[in-house]
Amino acid sequence: MWKHSTPGIPDELFERVEDVPITKEEVRVIQISKARLSPGQIVYDIGCGSGSISIEASHQVGSAGKVFSIDIDPNAVELTKKNLSKFQVSNVSVILGNAMQKINELPVADAIFIGGTGGETSEIVKLCEAKLKQGGRIVIGTILIETLYSVLNIIEKLKFSSIDITQVTISKSKKTSTGTMFLARNPVTIISATKI
Amino acid sequence: MWKHSTPGIPDELFERVEDVPITKEEVRVIQISKARLSPGQIVYDIGCGSGSISIEASHQVGSAGKVFSIDIDPNAVELTKKNLSKFQVSNVSVILGNAMQKINELPVADAIFIGGTGGETSEIVKLCEAKLKQGGRIVIGTILIETLYSVLNIIEKLKFSSIDITQVTISKSKKTSTGTMFLARNPVTIISATKI
Repeated sequence: MWKHSTPGIPDELFERVEDVPITKEEVRVIQISKARLSPGQIVYDIGCGSGSISIEASHQVGSAGKVFSIDIDPNAVELTKKNLSKFQVSNVSVILGNAMQKINELPVADAIFIGGTGGETSEIVKLCEAKLKQGGRIVIGTILIETLYSVLNIIEKLKFSSIDITQVTISKSKKTSTGTMFLARNPVTIISATKI
Repeated sequence: MWKHSTPGIPDELFERVEDVPITKEEVRVIQISKARLSPGQIVYDIGCGSGSISIEASHQVGSAGKVFSIDIDPNAVELTKKNLSKFQVSNVSVILGNAMQKINELPVADAIFIGGTGGETSEIVKLCEAKLKQGGRIVIGTILIETLYSVLNIIEKLKFSSIDITQVTISKSKKTSTGTMFLARNPVTIISATKI
């Protein structure tokens, strides 16, 4: 289905449903890159949505690695499962429920992605700090000012170094009747750091 | 030196010199993703600058693949060689000279990156079309309006499909005396397409 070693599966190859967000291709590859994945690693994808991050991460950690995908929305869990099956990915476990409860049951992680978790994000970051191996990476993607503010506040107080905040704004070309224009997408902010 | 399978080597790990540009981390990972690389592939990096794209590409194509890096600037060639040695990369050949002449001598390519080639870029795109395998990918990064215009003009007339134009604007956080601000970088436009 996707035979390339680089992340960057085009968005249109994923199954989509209304009301379940997808991390778009260009933002997704930056998020994956910030996690600095390697074969054999354990990864969480918290707020997995359509499962696009889980699938790209599963390709990077390979069959010796494992991805745990969590979402509180049954539609997201179902959609992630549909995409896993479409991409023939077998090293991903999908978990329905609140990450605050569910991650306690998981093995320690090399990398954790957090997205679309809204008001609880900073609490989830705290829990994730405890579940990350030393040298492990946390990558938080958000479109919300409140989440950015609260994550920035908490992450500087926890055992993290190399805190990086990158705001990504993507515009895509679009043909009009008279030429080619850029159509802007909303900025996404990616906060990443290394557990010390 | 860099043991991760995902592209996204931090900029500060590369050797740098003044007047030789580096494709910055976040833009670089998007460019690499647009090339959809796989192990064993042949890649050109035209206008290789600091060699950062060449090194990330070499990791993706692996020891069975090969990267040809070309730059007209002796300082860029020297810097690329320094970085290849720093990252212990052995599957990259660095070529000093004008891409217009040099690519004729190279084997056919699976993917071609073009960057920093200024006024000649659309002519180079034409030559690259002839050197790309069917299904091969071309990825052009530019900061110049003139290059974007001329590439758009030529690429639609050549044997390319799935033409994608993505403008990427990155802002990075910066600490001030009173808090954390975003510092904007210049937009970079990435044109990519598949040879038909």
